[in-house]
Amino acid sequence: MSRADRLVALLEDRSLDWLLVTNLVNVRYLTGFTGTNGACLVSPDERLFFTDFRYVERARAEVRKFERVEGGRDVLGDLAARLRGRCGFDDAHLSVRAHKRLAEKAAEGVELVPAGGLVERLRSQKEEAELRAMRAAAQIADAVYEEVRDQGLTGRTEREVARSMVRRMEDLGAEGPSFPPIVAAGAQGALPHAEPRDAEIPAGTLVVIDAGARVDGYCSDCTRTFATGPLDDGAVEVYDLVLRAQQEALAAARAGAERREVDGVARRIIDAAGHGERFGHGLGHGVGLEIHEDPRLTRVAEGDLSEGNTVTIEPGVYLPGSFGVRIEDLVAITADGPEVLTAFPKELVTVE
Amino acid sequence: MSRADRLVALLEDRSLDWLLVTNLVNVRYLTGFTGTNGACLVSPDERLFFTDFRYVERARAEVRKFERVEGGRDVLGDLAARLRGRCGFDDAHLSVRAHKRLAEKAAEGVELVPAGGLVERLRSQKEEAELRAMRAAAQIADAVYEEVRDQGLTGRTEREVARSMVRRMEDLGAEGPSFPPIVAAGAQGALPHAEPRDAEIPAGTLVVIDAGARVDGYCSDCTRTFATGPLDDGAVEVYDLVLRAQQEALAAARAGAERREVDGVARRIIDAAGHGERFGHGLGHGVGLEIHEDPRLTRVAEGDLSEGNTVTIEPGVYLPGSFGVRIEDLVAITADGPEVLTAFPKELVTVE
Repeated sequence: MSRADRLVALLEDRSLDWLLVTNLVNVRYLTGFTGTNGACLVSPDERLFFTDFRYVERARAEVRKFERVEGGRDVLGDLAARLRGRCGFDDAHLSVRAHKRLAEKAAEGVELVPAGGLVERLRSQKEEAELRAMRAAAQIADAVYEEVRDQGLTGRTEREVARSMVRRMEDLGAEGPSFPPIVAAGAQGALPHAEPRDAEIPAGTLVVIDAGARVDGYCSDCTRTFATGPLDDGAVEVYDLVLRAQQEALAAARAGAERREVDGVARRIIDAAGHGERFGHGLGHGVGLEIHEDPRLTRVAEGDLSEGNTVTIEPGVYLPGSFGVRIEDLVAITADGPEVLTAFPKELVTVE
Repeated sequence: MSRADRLVALLEDRSLDWLLVTNLVNVRYLTGFTGTNGACLVSPDERLFFTDFRYVERARAEVRKFERVEGGRDVLGDLAARLRGRCGFDDAHLSVRAHKRLAEKAAEGVELVPAGGLVERLRSQKEEAELRAMRAAAQIADAVYEEVRDQGLTGRTEREVARSMVRRMEDLGAEGPSFPPIVAAGAQGALPHAEPRDAEIPAGTLVVIDAGARVDGYCSDCTRTFATGPLDDGAVEVYDLVLRAQQEALAAARAGAERREVDGVARRIIDAAGHGERFGHGLGHGVGLEIHEDPRLTRVAEGDLSEGNTVTIEPGVYLPGSFGVRIEDLVAITADGPEVLTAFPKELVTVE
C-alpha cells in the first residue's frame, strides 16, 4: 500500500475528505519532491501536487505518483481552488497568514479542519528502504568516530574537529551532516546544546561528541563521550552510570513497551545515583527525514514503541561548570528487539 | 536608538501595546540570542526575553538588553501569561496551532493582532556593524571565486566544486556558506535552483556558480558564470546581454529609485533582445541575517530603495536544454550610490 493510501485510511478515521500537506518534509515523504516550495492534496480519489515555475522540471523528475498541477507563482492560491468539503490542514506548520489566505480563496462550503501530525504518524513507521538509508548514514558516522579516535582530540579546537567530521562524512558519501556536530570539552559538555568553539581541547577531560550523517535524506544520530587522558574517579563514575542507564534502556526498547517506561528505565538508574536533576532532557526521539521526529521517549510520552520505529536512546548527566556525559545509540525497533544502528564502541575510550 | 526602541515607534503607528516576536531571526536581531528556541515581547516600557531551560546559559551570555524570563519548558505558555492589551504577532510565521494556544492562555481582554513584517522592516536598513559583517562575508566569497578560477572547472564534478568552495570559506574564517552553493554546468545552468550533481563539468560550456559566505550571522551572495573553453557566438551574446543588463540596473540602484523600476531597467534590456521570457525571476532581493529578505526588486515590488538597504542585482537568461547565464552582485545603497560588496570580475572568464 502506498504512503498516500495509508494516509487516506487515517483521513477516513477523522471524517476528512482531503488532507492538505504543506510541511515540506511531509510533502517529500508522500511525493518524493525535494525542492523548497511545494504542497500536496490527498483524498481517497485524488493525489495532487503543486509547485511553482522554478521547480516544474524537478517535479517532473521526482513526483511520479501524484498528478502535477503545474501552476504559476502562487501555490497556495492554486491549491485553494481545488479544495472541497472537509479539508484537514497541518495546523502545527501552516501560518496564521497562510491559513487566512486559504480560507479566503477556498470555495464556499469548504471547512478547514486542524489535522497536524497524520503524516508524521506514518513517518514514524519506517519501511525497509528507509532503514537501509539510515543504516548507511549510521555506518558513515561510525567511520567518522573511528577517525576521531585515531586522530586524537587534545590540542585541536572543537570547531576544527566538528568541521573535519563533516568533511569526512561528505568524503564517505553522505549528503552532509544530519545536524551541525556538537564537540564540547570539559564544562562546555555540560550544555546539552553547545556549539563548537575555537577553544583547544585540553588533556584529561571529557569531550561530548554528538554527530550524524544524512544519506538519501535520512539522518543518523550518535553521541559518544571521549576521555582525553586520565580522569578523576568522579568523572569515571558518572560515565559508568550513564553507560549502564543507556544499556538498560536499550534493552527495554522493544515493540509494545510504553514509551515513558523506557525513559523511566534510564531515569530511575540515574535518579538512584543522585543525579536525577542532572538528566534534564528526554531519553530519546524518533529519527528519519528529520533529526527530531516522532515518537518521543520522555517522562510524559504517551503510547507504546512499535515495530518500525527508529529512536535514539541517549541518557546524559550534566554537571554545570565541570563536565557532561551523554551516550547515544540510534536503534530500529524490530520484531526481534532493538537493532542498534550505531556500532562505535561505548566503553570509555581515551584518545590523546 | 536601539533596535527595540525603533520597533516601539512602529508599534505606536499601529496602536499596538506589545509586539510578540517568535521568528528566530527577528528574535536574534532584537536580542542577540542565537539558540533554536526563544521569543521576545516588546512594549514601550518592557523588553522581555523567553527561552527554555536548555538555553538559559547561552541567553545569559547573549541577551543583555532584555529582561530574561527564565522559564521552564513552555516558552509560549510563559509569554502568554505576560500579554496585555493589543498585542501584535507575526502572522506570517506563527502557526495556527501556536496562535490557538496563545489565545487560550492569554488573559481576558488580550487582543491578538496580525502584525508580521515590522521587524523585517527594521532589518532592511542595515547599520554600519551589519555592513562590516556583510563586507567581510563578500570578501571571503571573492577569494573563493578566485580559487575556482585558479583551480579550473573542467573535469571536476559540480558537487566537488561546491564542496571545495564551502571548505575554503570555512578555512578563510566564515561560519559557513550562506546557502548551499549552486554549481550548474551547461543545460543544468538553465535551472535557476539547480543542485550540484556528481556529473563532470565538460569543456566549452557555461557554468553558473552562485555562492555566498556567512560572517557573524550575516550573508553574502554572488553569482558568476564561467566559460570552460571557447563558446559559440550565441552563448557569448547572451553573456554580454546579461552583463549589460546587470551593469545598467546596478547604476540605477540608488536611494529613492522605485524598486520595480530598477527591476525594469534590466528587464527592458533583456526584453529588447528577445529574451524577456527567459528571465523568469525578479532582479534581486534583500540580504542580511537571511539570504532572502526585504526589500525585493521585482516587477510588482512597491516602494523605493533607501539608504542602508543591501540588495542583490542578478538578472539571468535561461535557455532550457542549452545553458543559463546569471550575474549577481550584492550592493549596499549609500548616500553616494551603490557600494558593490562583491568584487570578483564580471567580464566573461574562461577557466579550463
